[in-house]
Amino acid sequence: MSNRNRTATLLQLCGRTRVSDSFFGHYMELVRNTMLPYQWEALQDRVEGAAPSFCIHNFKVAAGLKTGEFGGYVFQDSDLAKWIEAAAYTLMWHPDAELEKMLDEAIDLVVSAQQPDGYLNTYYIINGLDKWFTNLTDHHELYCAGHFIEAAAAYYYATGKRKLLDAMIRYVDCIGRQIGKEEGKLPGYPGHEVIEMALIKLYEITGDEKHRDLAQYFIDERGQDPLYFEEERKRANRGMHWANGPLKYQYYQAGKPVREQTEAEGHSVRAVYLYSGMADAAAESGDASLKEACLRLWKNLTRKRMYITGAIGSSAYGEAFTFDYDLPNDTVYGESCASVGLVFFANRMMHLDPAGEYGDVMEKALYNTILSGMSMDGTRFFYVNPLEVVPEACRKDKNKSHVKPERQKWFGCACCPPNIARMLTSLPGYIYTEQGLDAYVNLYIGNESTLHLNGREFGIKMESGFPWNGEVTIKISAKESLEGWGRIAFRIPGWCKSYVAKKNGRPIISAQVKKGFLYLNDELMDGDEITLDFAMPAVKMCANPRVREDSGKLAVMRGPLVYCLEEADNGELLANLRLSPSAEITATWREELLGGVMTLQSPGRRMISSWDEDDLYRPYSAENGYEENVTLTWIPYYAWANRGEGEMAVWIRKG
Amino acid sequence: MSNRNRTATLLQLCGRTRVSDSFFGHYMELVRNTMLPYQWEALQDRVEGAAPSFCIHNFKVAAGLKTGEFGGYVFQDSDLAKWIEAAAYTLMWHPDAELEKMLDEAIDLVVSAQQPDGYLNTYYIINGLDKWFTNLTDHHELYCAGHFIEAAAAYYYATGKRKLLDAMIRYVDCIGRQIGKEEGKLPGYPGHEVIEMALIKLYEITGDEKHRDLAQYFIDERGQDPLYFEEERKRANRGMHWANGPLKYQYYQAGKPVREQTEAEGHSVRAVYLYSGMADAAAESGDASLKEACLRLWKNLTRKRMYITGAIGSSAYGEAFTFDYDLPNDTVYGESCASVGLVFFANRMMHLDPAGEYGDVMEKALYNTILSGMSMDGTRFFYVNPLEVVPEACRKDKNKSHVKPERQKWFGCACCPPNIARMLTSLPGYIYTEQGLDAYVNLYIGNESTLHLNGREFGIKMESGFPWNGEVTIKISAKESLEGWGRIAFRIPGWCKSYVAKKNGRPIISAQVKKGFLYLNDELMDGDEITLDFAMPAVKMCANPRVREDSGKLAVMRGPLVYCLEEADNGELLANLRLSPSAEITATWREELLGGVMTLQSPGRRMISSWDEDDLYRPYSAENGYEENVTLTWIPYYAWANRGEGEMAVWIRKG
Repeated sequence: MSNRNRTATLLQLCGRTRVSDSFFGHYMELVRNTMLPYQWEALQDRVEGAAPSFCIHNFKVAAGLKTGEFGGYVFQDSDLAKWIEAAAYTLMWHPDAELEKMLDEAIDLVVSAQQPDGYLNTYYIINGLDKWFTNLTDHHELYCAGHFIEAAAAYYYATGKRKLLDAMIRYVDCIGRQIGKEEGKLPGYPGHEVIEMALIKLYEITGDEKHRDLAQYFIDERGQDPLYFEEERKRANRGMHWANGPLKYQYYQAGKPVREQTEAEGHSVRAVYLYSGMADAAAESGDASLKEACLRLWKNLTRKRMYITGAIGSSAYGEAFTFDYDLPNDTVYGESCASVGLVFFANRMMHLDPAGEYGDVMEKALYNTILSGMSMDGTRFFYVNPLEVVPEACRKDKNKSHVKPERQKWFGCACCPPNIARMLTSLPGYIYTEQGLDAYVNLYIGNESTLHLNGREFGIKMESGFPWNGEVTIKISAKESLEGWGRIAFRIPGWCKSYVAKKNGRPIISAQVKKGFLYLNDELMDGDEITLDFAMPAVKMCANPRVREDSGKLAVMRGPLVYCLEEADNGELLANLRLSPSAEITATWREELLGGVMTLQSPGRRMISSWDEDDLYRPYSAENGYEENVTLTWIPYYAWANRGEGEMAVWIRKG
Repeated sequence: MSNRNRTATLLQLCGRTRVSDSFFGHYMELVRNTMLPYQWEALQDRVEGAAPSFCIHNFKVAAGLKTGEFGGYVFQDSDLAKWIEAAAYTLMWHPDAELEKMLDEAIDLVVSAQQPDGYLNTYYIINGLDKWFTNLTDHHELYCAGHFIEAAAAYYYATGKRKLLDAMIRYVDCIGRQIGKEEGKLPGYPGHEVIEMALIKLYEITGDEKHRDLAQYFIDERGQDPLYFEEERKRANRGMHWANGPLKYQYYQAGKPVREQTEAEGHSVRAVYLYSGMADAAAESGDASLKEACLRLWKNLTRKRMYITGAIGSSAYGEAFTFDYDLPNDTVYGESCASVGLVFFANRMMHLDPAGEYGDVMEKALYNTILSGMSMDGTRFFYVNPLEVVPEACRKDKNKSHVKPERQKWFGCACCPPNIARMLTSLPGYIYTEQGLDAYVNLYIGNESTLHLNGREFGIKMESGFPWNGEVTIKISAKESLEGWGRIAFRIPGWCKSYVAKKNGRPIISAQVKKGFLYLNDELMDGDEITLDFAMPAVKMCANPRVREDSGKLAVMRGPLVYCLEEADNGELLANLRLSPSAEITATWREELLGGVMTLQSPGRRMISSWDEDDLYRPYSAENGYEENVTLTWIPYYAWANRGEGEMAVWIRKG
């Protein structure tokens, strides 16, 4: 029996909550109106100048509707799955018969490719079913299955239609016949995780313990000795791509059993997907050692391996983590998908250990790296989200060739665009957490929803000034008094050093603050209005002295937003700018700029020089170190690279 | 007829000059006594734990003395050539019958592998002569030939023995029958340059214009349209490794004709080897456009693409240059061979345009990067010479995996160790340049030599305190007065802001300073003593503001030496240290340390913190930015990494 059977699932919360936020509401509509139709065209290879997807093509070939070869990466199916999932969420908050018809047709296509035994992966259907499940290490069969399970769950939840859900249940049965600890099965698990959390989601719908148990098996078996990936490799007489570098099997988080893993390692997207599944499984089972592992990995990841923007993954090699406090700003990977996965992980951790820091990280990733992953017009995307860019270096220094100074139309490996889409269209599900008797407010995104305290329903309506100001108003509607049902807890953002909380205009004095949440002990009644006013001054941030790349540097934040300097506002050679710790920073709203943003200004200094361009090194002297006064102008990081190519920097020299 | 027929060749100067320098003399003896015997063992695969060379093995197989396959890289022959060359130089200044016997035997082996038509490359002799000259782009046939020509020239010059020289003349004839512009020949040139300067050296011995003309052909044909490498690639239906990166055919300096090249590009060793050959050829021919190209490339290389240590090559990708002012300290390549090649280039530029800056760059490369390439005991080597190292990053960040925190025993690609050896054993040849009527003192390395002014001989004896102090004494011996013969010019080091020059104890007032040289116009006579006292205070250096990686940082130099901070003296997290521009630096001689070095100390500041290790970002406050006073201790850069693994940094934050 589930240990969290009284709490609402992500899909339930998503289904109940209507976002009315002027900030994120805009992006959700942008995804719905522009990004999803654009991506639908991309999946059908109809976007001029964009890398081809082959996604729909592959399904048509697999279903026998056209002839041809498999195109694109082995995991191409997952792009369609993520698109279906993203679109399904929009139906929860914006019913659209035409879109639903498109989705039905897409699902018909997918299911028409399914084999009689339930198998459903176009790569092997096209290239030979005799080879199925022979390369769990690198061929993403279980990954694609995981994404289709997520899509099926979302679509079922949005429409009540079971076609894709039933197809995926059959596919899971097929997988379960082939893979597992039992005699005659392959004791394998996915090279790219995601199916773990997908199966828990499926279990939340079906209640079928088989689904939960398969997730648990994938988690428990991972990294056990003898190592399945190594056995598989030997059987197939394959090489091991990561053998000669620092990652080895930890690229796949499979170098040791998951409960023995203490540091966030390997491919960062895989890592956070695995950890999300682990947290889900631990919440279901109450398994203390698994919970411990989740807490340990969370702590390592967010205390030692996370950028101030919520980006994760320090190195392009393996799109991976490197080591504690190694956070280079210019060669960073910081994949958009990884920050999406970080939100998944944070959200799930709330069920293990309710704390404000999970909302802090969700907020950080959402308002900064995830939004930075898309252009203002919703049709261009970043895969990599650097904190420092010199466009010439992206072109001429191979170490930075993964960093693009401008967003791209599409990618051969197009995991990020639909991942950003499904994150934003399911955003309503992340605002609240119901856990135990209590209801938690994680994110200050304006919305209207229905929540439960100890299972009893009440209405909540939130208006929020985030991210531009910290004023939040929450109205409660309830048929009866909420006294004694449970508590409503409001996250006090980690960045906020001062706030005022009021109930019906009067300061709240009886609240308890614990682990970053303000728990209201007051009796709440229908019509009560809670106001929270979080002070949101611009703040100069510094990094732990162990972060070498940020030594002697400052970054600027205002509320949840990390700011950056762009060449468009500050000229080239941003490395020559510095900011005094005592400089005053003023905020100016600029309606016409970048869709309307709060810009920041402060006095600063720019090193200039009388140097001849032919003079490379000189004895230091006041003359050579000459600086001029300048006004520094910051824009929110998420909005960078929307004004053509140029330098960008989040961290600036202090002094 | 040569345009420089009155000047001494490098080999002549090497043969005439006896080094008595306490600093470099030590290293030359270390090479002779330890490094060359060690490398001889390595070439025979007899060093335990070192990567195998296969070098001698390959020659034995090629000569039919044993059976087996070709081992190692296609250019493995060159390691033996460089070793013979390096050992040959020692015979010029330290006759050694036993070594000469070993060399004779090695040469016998080499020549016994030579084919009747003169061809001599073990890779193709073993793998099939039908394929010779089919992959000039990547198979280093002409490169190996070039190195054997250099070896043959050195050995002939040292011993008068012609066996290897004659063998190489026959090989050059063989090459000349196959390659060239004439009908029926391959209009090719080497993928890895070196044969150009080797052929000029051969010409200086043989006087055979064929040798000079072949060098000139290789230079002139390079990069012409249609591109030979592209034609060769198409013929063989091969791919082009560098096609998808930023380098393309400029990896080989073949993207355009050499006279159209304006920036130092591509593989840095190849680049400086080519430029050296170009400078040689321009000096021979007086070709103004070629001279112009050399000056332009020199200027770009040393003004915009050279590290303060004389390292060159900013990126591991292609071991190559990147773009102007792009000089990352931690991901740098800075191959030891490239700095050796930089000395070659600088030395040759003296014949095109005598100027002190050439000696400045030779000195910079020699006292810093080239010496850093070897361990204090002469048996460990750096291939890559970083300016900033964090050992953990070398192991865990693939972008830095080419950087080793400690010197290695040998390398699969072992170009550097014998290159450092031949540089140091031929060092006597670099101290002086005879050009036109004049004699130039490039380097202040104690020695005794015979020079010429307008062809007339005189003796010179130099004592030097370099690099520890700037006191230099030069004694002239001559059979007759030197008046009116030509001028002796002494380099005023670029780092020196104040010096005193005396003749026989009296200040020299009639000297002329031009382009970094002090030209003595005084009549010089037998017994005259010139003393030069170059002030050598420790100096804080800064980089051009366009060098982003050094923005807001200082480096410390004293005389020709660049200094660095090591963890052994300063603790870990060197990034947390800073140096005030006004801090006083004191020098302390430490006899017992690192073979005896002048260390530098100054007050500095270290950021410490009350931070919990679990706290990654914080609002900046005086408390979080707390610093303590520390004493910073510098050692000379060349001596780093001789006390176990640890952090190292050349640049330190200013403030």
